[in-house]
Amino acid sequence: MMKRTKMCGEVTKKNVGETVVLNGWVAKIRDFGGLTFLDIRDRSGVCQIVCNESDMKDSEFSKVLSLRNEFVIAVKGKLALRNPQNINKKISTGEVELLADEISIFSESDPIPFALDDPNINENVRLKYRYLDLRRPVLQHNLMIRSKVCKIIRDYLDANGFIEVETPMLGKSTPEGARDYLVPSRVNPNTFYALPQSPQLYKQLLMIAGYDRYYQIARCFRDEDLRANRQPEFTQIDLEMSFVDQNDVMDMAEGMIKEVFSKILGLKFDSKFLSITYKEAMDRFGSDAPDMRFGLELVDISDIAKNSSLGIFVSAIENGGSVRLINVPSSVATLSRRDIETLVDFVKIYKAKGLSFIQVGENGEVKSSLSKFFSEKQMSDILKRANAKSGDVLLVCADKNDVVFASLGALRVHIANKYGLINKDEYKFCWVTDFPMFEYSEDEKRYKAVHHPFTAPSDLFLDDLENKKAVATAKAYDIVINGQEAGGGSIRIHNKKVQERVFRILGLSEDDISNRFGFFADAFKYGAPPHGGLAFGLDRLIMLLEKVSSIREVIAFPKTQAAADLMSEAPSKVDKKQLDELYIALKNVENKKD
Amino acid sequence: MMKRTKMCGEVTKKNVGETVVLNGWVAKIRDFGGLTFLDIRDRSGVCQIVCNESDMKDSEFSKVLSLRNEFVIAVKGKLALRNPQNINKKISTGEVELLADEISIFSESDPIPFALDDPNINENVRLKYRYLDLRRPVLQHNLMIRSKVCKIIRDYLDANGFIEVETPMLGKSTPEGARDYLVPSRVNPNTFYALPQSPQLYKQLLMIAGYDRYYQIARCFRDEDLRANRQPEFTQIDLEMSFVDQNDVMDMAEGMIKEVFSKILGLKFDSKFLSITYKEAMDRFGSDAPDMRFGLELVDISDIAKNSSLGIFVSAIENGGSVRLINVPSSVATLSRRDIETLVDFVKIYKAKGLSFIQVGENGEVKSSLSKFFSEKQMSDILKRANAKSGDVLLVCADKNDVVFASLGALRVHIANKYGLINKDEYKFCWVTDFPMFEYSEDEKRYKAVHHPFTAPSDLFLDDLENKKAVATAKAYDIVINGQEAGGGSIRIHNKKVQERVFRILGLSEDDISNRFGFFADAFKYGAPPHGGLAFGLDRLIMLLEKVSSIREVIAFPKTQAAADLMSEAPSKVDKKQLDELYIALKNVENKKD
Repeated sequence: MMKRTKMCGEVTKKNVGETVVLNGWVAKIRDFGGLTFLDIRDRSGVCQIVCNESDMKDSEFSKVLSLRNEFVIAVKGKLALRNPQNINKKISTGEVELLADEISIFSESDPIPFALDDPNINENVRLKYRYLDLRRPVLQHNLMIRSKVCKIIRDYLDANGFIEVETPMLGKSTPEGARDYLVPSRVNPNTFYALPQSPQLYKQLLMIAGYDRYYQIARCFRDEDLRANRQPEFTQIDLEMSFVDQNDVMDMAEGMIKEVFSKILGLKFDSKFLSITYKEAMDRFGSDAPDMRFGLELVDISDIAKNSSLGIFVSAIENGGSVRLINVPSSVATLSRRDIETLVDFVKIYKAKGLSFIQVGENGEVKSSLSKFFSEKQMSDILKRANAKSGDVLLVCADKNDVVFASLGALRVHIANKYGLINKDEYKFCWVTDFPMFEYSEDEKRYKAVHHPFTAPSDLFLDDLENKKAVATAKAYDIVINGQEAGGGSIRIHNKKVQERVFRILGLSEDDISNRFGFFADAFKYGAPPHGGLAFGLDRLIMLLEKVSSIREVIAFPKTQAAADLMSEAPSKVDKKQLDELYIALKNVENKKD
Repeated sequence: MMKRTKMCGEVTKKNVGETVVLNGWVAKIRDFGGLTFLDIRDRSGVCQIVCNESDMKDSEFSKVLSLRNEFVIAVKGKLALRNPQNINKKISTGEVELLADEISIFSESDPIPFALDDPNINENVRLKYRYLDLRRPVLQHNLMIRSKVCKIIRDYLDANGFIEVETPMLGKSTPEGARDYLVPSRVNPNTFYALPQSPQLYKQLLMIAGYDRYYQIARCFRDEDLRANRQPEFTQIDLEMSFVDQNDVMDMAEGMIKEVFSKILGLKFDSKFLSITYKEAMDRFGSDAPDMRFGLELVDISDIAKNSSLGIFVSAIENGGSVRLINVPSSVATLSRRDIETLVDFVKIYKAKGLSFIQVGENGEVKSSLSKFFSEKQMSDILKRANAKSGDVLLVCADKNDVVFASLGALRVHIANKYGLINKDEYKFCWVTDFPMFEYSEDEKRYKAVHHPFTAPSDLFLDDLENKKAVATAKAYDIVINGQEAGGGSIRIHNKKVQERVFRILGLSEDDISNRFGFFADAFKYGAPPHGGLAFGLDRLIMLLEKVSSIREVIAFPKTQAAADLMSEAPSKVDKKQLDELYIALKNVENKKD
């Protein structure tokens, strides 16, 4: 076997004159009669090979003539400088070429079903031949970065005293949360394991067990109807710490993110990430995952609007809602009537009944159907608060708060994308803290936990939690990068009495607790330390780092939105014998609509 | 929150005089009236706390009186030297004690169901309360070592250019190998995913895709009837390399093992691991996983025995079997007649019809029922070959080779254990290479692959594989530590033509190939590099390092031999709604014996 002495992408001017052996795939062949140029590729890059009939033995040159794309070969030869006019500055090896002397063919290749450099291949074809698709340098790059990120994270957490612990994949199905993937048990017929949606319970048990600092890069599973950028299995960077408060966990996680972004992208950080409360995030950005790369912040004019004569505004406020606006300055866009109407349509997705708008004319005059409902003073207060100048357009939404926030929050991002306000090279990191503790469920006529019932309430509300259910906040925090939730976590309740109070607020009886949380609730009886943690979505983190928009570009063997692997054809029918052993039978799918 | 300034096990003489805060669990309370001694424990160790009523505020000392075992507390105080007579040399903090000033109780604990230092707790109780069991320092140590080993392995492989790639957990069920765990698909009714038995196919596809060096510490699943030390889910250190031969892979893996054993146990290695062929391993040790910490090697006396007048010996040899013995020297044990009979019984487990024996008397005289079938010269040749001396006993087995090897191989280990020949502090590493390529299946009347059909044959047999099926060896290798297979792997076939020949020898038609290997066989049409790899069992590696005999001592949340998690009570019944969504129904278990 003719073993390589260098990787294809490694050879540079420094190696000129050396005898080098390269191993790799034939990426390109240009045949000029007695002279053939080859590109040979491995994961490190590409090198140009010159095969000159007059310099090679006949037996060797005849091998050159038999080569086709994607043959796997070894080439031995002397490295030379390229002629100056042939220098390719786009690749690291672009100044050199290998003058082939010997060739060895490791294996041949049938013509491959698509050209690797074709940017327009149907994704289903790419997924069917994923082992070929994965040869594309861009995918190789993404997966190498993914590996590197995991290494950086592990090094960081290891240096900070975290222990990696593997938690079970075959766990128990719990009625909480999203739908479980089930695994029938053969040894215990008619019972099932569930694949984990996250290692949440196990990591808290590890804290109760005294492991102090735990991490795992853990595979998680959710049997959801897949939206874009969801996969049935995904990877979570999962960590938990004992004897800490919220700031300790946030500092640790922030340090990790900084380490990743500085080592991968060379970003420099000289201060802490911005941290804002959930309330501020909603008030200013209409979102708990605010994109801070641009302005267009929300402006609350409820106090002015409640004194207007516009019934729908007044009643929105009286019903607990609000009136808010976004100012689209003329420096961002000169919105035509038609542009505005498109935006009015856009917010309807978010259940807003519509948008009102106020145009500020060249001389500061107001053009708006709202004018007749507001006094001049009121209108001037609005413009002042919105910092509106000539040519600006204010888009006003009045509704229940969740509709106002969803509509204006999405509108803000929509406008920023449409009018190019986002610097794609920029990264803006922020913490969002103090999430609500409870939310009222109209369906069930009771309060439910926003995170999970083990999340600790903020100290401020601890004494009077029972009377402040509607406003109490939790020690829960998210980390947001460029408007995407990259991770989130909370401090957990470790005190039995607080836990019992929270259960009572949630209306859970002893039986409920035992049925729904069982051994997990029991574990807290035996001395739980103060603890908290956080989980990051690894797939999303890599997408953010690599600026790719599809999750399938950062996973080696992803599934389609129909949860299928087109390469292996999983899921698939199985033998009746396999089902018999598991004591399960298939039910007719014709009844699917039952 | 009174946050720790040190871990409990960290305080030493150097810190005497410092004010220290410790956080942890109350491990022991000794109450002497106005003076209470506490042990406080975290994962780093234990520290003694002195609570003296006369030195503490009443409010603080009254907290001390309320403490019970496993309460989680913070203690603040000044570190002092212990009186010389109270020094405890068994623990790192044994020379110091903390004079408590302030106490904070983070959480209380009900009395725990078993004492953590009780060595005789029923394992099922331990598993039910695993979060308490995991507080035991020995389990914490095992899991911390496990984490450390993973870190060492990752660092080593990363430094050697390996990329960590996550392969799918939801894969395709294949009829080859052990029984799959199945996962019903909801989105694609009546079809199933399978949990991976190993990432074998994916890692080879990654080589075909050009990833060059891959690794993963991967969870694998096998739905087997569990024997001791098997778990339904287990962890594999999985690696694969391109453009390498067998020695490259072995060197890489050996380097990794040396790194682990030197960093964890301080072992020093100044030479390569011993490497022996499968044939030599069987001939000398009767096992392909030989324990080399002791002698008692097998001695082949077939050439002598075939000329004896003992029919069962002669016919065993004529039928392709052999006659072999083990010499138990008098230095190892003086075997009584009764001892020998116990050993004769022992080998019956391995289907040996029995053992003959030859006792060498004080003056070298032979006492054996075999004497009458052997000439004096033959008997003396046997003694010579067995290096038998006065007082030695030779245990002779004649049968088919697999019975002889299994019987004497097991007997060798049995005797070594029984008579204390094994130095438990010693580690003996060896490679076993050149495994057979094919084995003849009497059931199917055809040759089958010993490893898998993608394993490369040894070069020596490549030209004439078709005629040398019975003796051909493969480029397959195992690493054996103290008689345990710690890992194994092979060089894979990368050449289409060789692969086709192997398929033909195995009697596989085009249809068979497509049905059984499908897309995987296809992938080899598009340029596969020479490649090979190896997988280690992580659980077993930790068991070897930590010298524990149960796999459940190295896994955080293990399952019982009935594949159950006694803590979470998985597997469990699930809601009918969940099954309906998956289009599956339960079958009656009363028909289990069908």
